Amino acid sequence: MTQENKIPYKIYLEESEMPTRWYNVRADMKNKPAPLLNPGTLQPMTAEELGGVFCADLVAQELDNDTPYIEIPEEIRNFYKMYRPSPVVRAYCLEEKLKTPAKIYYKFEGNNTSGSHKLNSAIAQAYYAKKQGLKGVTTETGAGQWGTALSMACAYLGLDCKVYMVKVSYEQKPFRREVMRTYGASVTPSPSMTTEVGKKILAAHPGTTGSLGCAISEAVEVAVGTEGYRYVLGSVLNQVLLHQSVIGLEAKAALDKYGVKPDIIIGCAGGGSNLGGLISPFMGEKLRGEADYRIIAVEPASCPSFTRGVYAYDFCDTGMVCPLAKMYTLGADFIPAPNHAGGLRYHGMSPVLSQLYDDGLMEATSIKQTDVFEAAEYFARCEGILPAPESSHAICAAINEAKKCAETGEEKTILFGLTGTGYFDMVAYEKFHDGLMDDYIPTDEELAKYRESLPKV
Amino acid sequence: MTQENKIPYKIYLEESEMPTRWYNVRADMKNKPAPLLNPGTLQPMTAEELGGVFCADLVAQELDNDTPYIEIPEEIRNFYKMYRPSPVVRAYCLEEKLKTPAKIYYKFEGNNTSGSHKLNSAIAQAYYAKKQGLKGVTTETGAGQWGTALSMACAYLGLDCKVYMVKVSYEQKPFRREVMRTYGASVTPSPSMTTEVGKKILAAHPGTTGSLGCAISEAVEVAVGTEGYRYVLGSVLNQVLLHQSVIGLEAKAALDKYGVKPDIIIGCAGGGSNLGGLISPFMGEKLRGEADYRIIAVEPASCPSFTRGVYAYDFCDTGMVCPLAKMYTLGADFIPAPNHAGGLRYHGMSPVLSQLYDDGLMEATSIKQTDVFEAAEYFARCEGILPAPESSHAICAAINEAKKCAETGEEKTILFGLTGTGYFDMVAYEKFHDGLMDDYIPTDEELAKYRESLPKV
Repeated sequence: MTQENKIPYKIYLEESEMPTRWYNVRADMKNKPAPLLNPGTLQPMTAEELGGVFCADLVAQELDNDTPYIEIPEEIRNFYKMYRPSPVVRAYCLEEKLKTPAKIYYKFEGNNTSGSHKLNSAIAQAYYAKKQGLKGVTTETGAGQWGTALSMACAYLGLDCKVYMVKVSYEQKPFRREVMRTYGASVTPSPSMTTEVGKKILAAHPGTTGSLGCAISEAVEVAVGTEGYRYVLGSVLNQVLLHQSVIGLEAKAALDKYGVKPDIIIGCAGGGSNLGGLISPFMGEKLRGEADYRIIAVEPASCPSFTRGVYAYDFCDTGMVCPLAKMYTLGADFIPAPNHAGGLRYHGMSPVLSQLYDDGLMEATSIKQTDVFEAAEYFARCEGILPAPESSHAICAAINEAKKCAETGEEKTILFGLTGTGYFDMVAYEKFHDGLMDDYIPTDEELAKYRESLPKV
Repeated sequence: MTQENKIPYKIYLEESEMPTRWYNVRADMKNKPAPLLNPGTLQPMTAEELGGVFCADLVAQELDNDTPYIEIPEEIRNFYKMYRPSPVVRAYCLEEKLKTPAKIYYKFEGNNTSGSHKLNSAIAQAYYAKKQGLKGVTTETGAGQWGTALSMACAYLGLDCKVYMVKVSYEQKPFRREVMRTYGASVTPSPSMTTEVGKKILAAHPGTTGSLGCAISEAVEVAVGTEGYRYVLGSVLNQVLLHQSVIGLEAKAALDKYGVKPDIIIGCAGGGSNLGGLISPFMGEKLRGEADYRIIAVEPASCPSFTRGVYAYDFCDTGMVCPLAKMYTLGADFIPAPNHAGGLRYHGMSPVLSQLYDDGLMEATSIKQTDVFEAAEYFARCEGILPAPESSHAICAAINEAKKCAETGEEKTILFGLTGTGYFDMVAYEKFHDGLMDDYIPTDEELAKYRESLPKV
């Protein structure tokens, strides 16, 4: 392995170089993301209406399509300093193994106990809840990273934390619950009998393995019905992408230090929090005409919102208690096949990213899960890090692009988001090793059926 | 939380500031560690005898009591760059929560997929095996960190890796096996029927939960009996402490950058690899009379080699196939109570550390396991990181010292080793949360009985 002149394996920013402001990509979008609608009146949700569900400061961030930079409060910056900056890593070993002239970089967000980038928004949302004098927050979690992140943030600030965890993940990742308990959170598998909407879903679909959409409905119901509580969400929302812009801002600052400019930026996409955060400042340059980048969203073939969904107003949750969002969606009833182990199982997609995709400012691709795990193992063996299945979608796409460069001889610079680690995904890895993992992909007929649940807006 | 002027939350060295040489503390010891003895002749093991078990270059390092600095080969330095330098973290939040005037720093070795410092020696040992043209290596693993680390190093270098894993850990940490499989290693629970010594131990102790001592015997038997294989060990040996000196060298360089000098240095001690590595350069200064430090080894009350063992020649393994080492030991038959979940379960202790302890150059203390897990949870909630039970022994001791400072008002500077993360220890955390963890401590009578197995040297 030869190390290129000057560029270290890992680029860390100094503490003093860390971002002090989040970047709001909406400010530079010509076509703004469509507003959330009140499902009753079909009118845009007002700040007052949203305030029943979310903290006031977060509502303001959610609705702010104009302010390009928003100050990161000092308390949040101090928390960030405990686990950030995260490194931009030059994948020298992967490049060598692939015999590619491409230069591969990844922004690694897994070096914290939540195991992913989710902590960036968890601490922000918990901070504003605390500032508002709330007692606690409720949320959903799928793979468990978001729930863990929120538990950590709440433990740090002394807030109560109630987590509804998608049942299939609760069962596949028994130890995630213990991590959340270590941080003092209560964890309920969803759908559950603790909420009206949970009871309804269980009655309609006995034995369901759950979905993020169900878990959101339950968490929202509890937040709205409990004094001193609000609901927080780990992805999809504009505010989440705002907080996650810290990923992209750090990545860009780190690459700028060494004069590196990516040609291709790749991120996995479930609800869009990681991808949206990673690409933010780069997309900003693209929107302002200052630079051009090829930007690729990677999703599982078993939950293909971008590549096979429709761009339409839809419910964010299965119980239909949330506002309507205009997004690429498979329909709020969509639940990926139970054999799907790779995360990224949300039926919809961030309205910001949906608009950018619809405007042709980014691409999307989907990958089947055995390919994802093959890429994960390949990556683990040369780069050392055991990646989360979610992140491995981006790894797979990055490897594919690097292989193309090996064929064409092009020395492209690739940046991808390595969102987290797979320590709690060993059941899935075991299935893969034992050859028990399959690649079920929904048929066109199935997808058409799910689309029937779309609201008529 | 107030951040002291200039000292960042995390001190990272630049790549160019990383150590290029390991430090061999034996060179500065007036009383050298006692040599390994051939169990048959009771004469010091020769390089030739050791060469049947270990790689030639590692034998040379094992026997070298004189060379103070040994060059780190470039290939190893490149691998180190993939996950090192590890940060020295200022525990601002812990200090505030403890209301202590003490300044607490920890060297965090858990930010790599093996989850601990073990990778530092794994890559070195695998490198020398590869250099010697071997096909593969065998080893034992207890909690699983060492086995994972070795698997990673072997995958990187293309070596075969056979791991004997202590049965109780194999069962308590089902997912560790999958991580090792991801890196292509074969993992056998020990004692097993795959070796003569394993069969013998199982016949004598049916239903045994295993011990590091058993697993070492099995791994050595396989290495010695298989063409192109050698045995490697994750702790205890002089060579391991040499490789692990990278921890202390980085820690000292990082603190020196900010003019920080620790008063107290604390590390957990099982076989001594982490503690020995962390304290190396500080102990060197102490041995040379250039500085003084209070150095504390922390061990589990259920496996108290330093605090309740004897300093004597003993077998390193249960099957008595290994050389004899002079060390603080509980007797090679010692197996901690099955309820012991906190790692650090080896019956003996590094000969280097044993000699330093016997010379009064360091202290030792033992902690019972519920106190360890209480400290772990306390630490996790304020510092974010979910610590390994092993590391939490050091956390607990550091908290105790910081509390003393809170009482006396002394502004002592404490440095401790945070060796790893606890993601694969959730069964133990669950027991702790559920109140099912007890604190069995061996009686004097029990310890006396185990001492009967000591060889008469």
